Amino acid sequence: MRDVAIVGRGTTTYGVHDDGIKDLATKAVARALDSSGLERSAVEALSLGNFAAGMLEGQELLAALVADAVGLEDIPVMKTEGACASSGIAFHQARQQIAMGVHDVVVVVGVEKMTGVPTAEFTQALAAAADGTTEGQTGLTFPGFYGLFTSRYLHEYSVDREDISKVAVKNRRNAAENPRARFREPITIDDVMESEPIADPLRLYDCCPAADGATAVVLTASDMAPSVTSDPIEVLATAHTSGRSGAYRYDDLTTFEATRTAASRVYSEADVTPADIDVVELHDCFSSAEVGDSEDLRFFPKGEGAAAAAAGDTAVDGEIPINPSGGLLSKGHPVGATGLGQIYEICRQLNGDHENQVADAQTGLTHNLGGSGAVCTVSVLGRK
Amino acid sequence: MRDVAIVGRGTTTYGVHDDGIKDLATKAVARALDSSGLERSAVEALSLGNFAAGMLEGQELLAALVADAVGLEDIPVMKTEGACASSGIAFHQARQQIAMGVHDVVVVVGVEKMTGVPTAEFTQALAAAADGTTEGQTGLTFPGFYGLFTSRYLHEYSVDREDISKVAVKNRRNAAENPRARFREPITIDDVMESEPIADPLRLYDCCPAADGATAVVLTASDMAPSVTSDPIEVLATAHTSGRSGAYRYDDLTTFEATRTAASRVYSEADVTPADIDVVELHDCFSSAEVGDSEDLRFFPKGEGAAAAAAGDTAVDGEIPINPSGGLLSKGHPVGATGLGQIYEICRQLNGDHENQVADAQTGLTHNLGGSGAVCTVSVLGRK
Repeated sequence: MRDVAIVGRGTTTYGVHDDGIKDLATKAVARALDSSGLERSAVEALSLGNFAAGMLEGQELLAALVADAVGLEDIPVMKTEGACASSGIAFHQARQQIAMGVHDVVVVVGVEKMTGVPTAEFTQALAAAADGTTEGQTGLTFPGFYGLFTSRYLHEYSVDREDISKVAVKNRRNAAENPRARFREPITIDDVMESEPIADPLRLYDCCPAADGATAVVLTASDMAPSVTSDPIEVLATAHTSGRSGAYRYDDLTTFEATRTAASRVYSEADVTPADIDVVELHDCFSSAEVGDSEDLRFFPKGEGAAAAAAGDTAVDGEIPINPSGGLLSKGHPVGATGLGQIYEICRQLNGDHENQVADAQTGLTHNLGGSGAVCTVSVLGRK
Repeated sequence: MRDVAIVGRGTTTYGVHDDGIKDLATKAVARALDSSGLERSAVEALSLGNFAAGMLEGQELLAALVADAVGLEDIPVMKTEGACASSGIAFHQARQQIAMGVHDVVVVVGVEKMTGVPTAEFTQALAAAADGTTEGQTGLTFPGFYGLFTSRYLHEYSVDREDISKVAVKNRRNAAENPRARFREPITIDDVMESEPIADPLRLYDCCPAADGATAVVLTASDMAPSVTSDPIEVLATAHTSGRSGAYRYDDLTTFEATRTAASRVYSEADVTPADIDVVELHDCFSSAEVGDSEDLRFFPKGEGAAAAAAGDTAVDGEIPINPSGGLLSKGHPVGATGLGQIYEICRQLNGDHENQVADAQTGLTHNLGGSGAVCTVSVLGRK
């Protein structure tokens, strides 16, 4: 198996864009290719992570349209979909293709266009990531699912409710430094606790905002990377797992086995422990999700994630900085783009050129979760 | 690179089903696994080809839902999408994963649920396979695109218009023998020529019908296959290519370069010529598409495919039998299932147990085309 490196990256900001979905993805791919300096003809495959382009934009076949628009010819192209983990999947697959020698250069892009859609249509589209034959029938939304998750978490563990929401305050503080983030104005814990109730006990600022956005990276074999760029990022490990398809399938609603399994696999493959990770971008679709994820990834014992966040352990200058980009909570969550957005942010951290830089970051981790913990990808990246 | 074999297969009929899309896919996967005799725990990955579940059924994340429903745990699952080539892509990717040693056993399923949807919604969903920023704006539908294709073909080559439609008559005759086909009543050339005009010069019976359906296969390394089944089918070659994203991007609208490139690659990889192929299932979404495809795949010189079909060369007892299943034209075209449906039919042919058997079929070819020739997969399968 060959080592794999990231040798190019490009992104749009995450927020409200006039561009349509094809143009967003095309821009990210063009920027990633330009940053690598590679010719179009060097690219041997393109994978595109996307969730809702069909439902929200009436556009499928996006991988082929983007390839044609950007000038990539006669190569395998596909869209990968796994709800919120759609581009994490594309990244894992592309890394495998290079590692196993199928291809030498692969471009991966994630994209979503979510703003400007009527609320009912938007809610209906997001509901497509729940099982319409089971929980979907009950009207359970994702805020509702994470409301249940949060209630159960508070029931199981001795946790200060406000400590959970301090995650949202921390991530907004981080986003102030990140020009790619959708919401950058600082908020206080009172702002969160006094914001509109969404799904008890979650408030508005406990929930990530939608966004338009696209992010792309260029992957190649590590032994080819130095001829392409002076600052490649090594892909030390990736994992892609599946889990339960709804709340009713969980014995313990406060733990996502898909995350725990993926984490075990990457720690083993990269031969690291959680203590070796310097910076993390994880799937904080809700403030409580960041708390649970930080425990499932084994940065904290079960039930201790919220207090650790409140104590500053996950701040940019903390013991284990989590979501220095602002995370989904402040950067925004363009569903199909998010997994690669996390990869992009960690690359910037490991190259030492992030706007909200973690000091001396050598090893980073990304965590992308789809549905009710139904699909998960985790990656470990390292500085060369 | 390891040789790869198909060791299990399962399908629903193609037609009108009461089952929802998750249940259709789950049944096909369960049948494929049961036919292989493999335990659920042996499966290392699941890929699901689908085009329109989000738009037509409001359901995404299908790969995870099907895996959970069928009892597959903690494995990588993903949906692949490339319009009408969605499950051809899934098959190509899965074959690569086994060939390169990433996995030993992979299940691939293709599925679509299309009936019972209001016509406007249905037409809008299919339009998602065209570029909404270019030709989609003109209102060009896929029958319209193939109407242009057919008109240009008739302009370029000296062809009897009725010879093109004789493909539809031949495929309906084949479907009479196939219990999986949606439409099995014989039709005459007069029936076709007198049927409702759809997109000049195409008539109703020149166009494939929609259908609900799902098909799955189980892949493993060839050296493991004999321990699983007594009648494995060898995957001799697969290719996955991209082409132009709309009619305006073609210099020659009567030739799909994506098909020509994919065909060249599989003939080379399998070390065969078109003359070595005994049976073909190709993407006859329209009668004229079968004619063009049969030329792009190099079974006939350009401009001679229609006359050859009319002369019986592509009949089940002809020189190169094409679509003995009835093809998309009669079996139906459940978009995301079609690529694997073709694989299923060829497996039955090579095992010698097809209801419309081609005598002594040793080597078969499948051809799956998405969008305006924007994505193509071609496979060559062989009897062990």
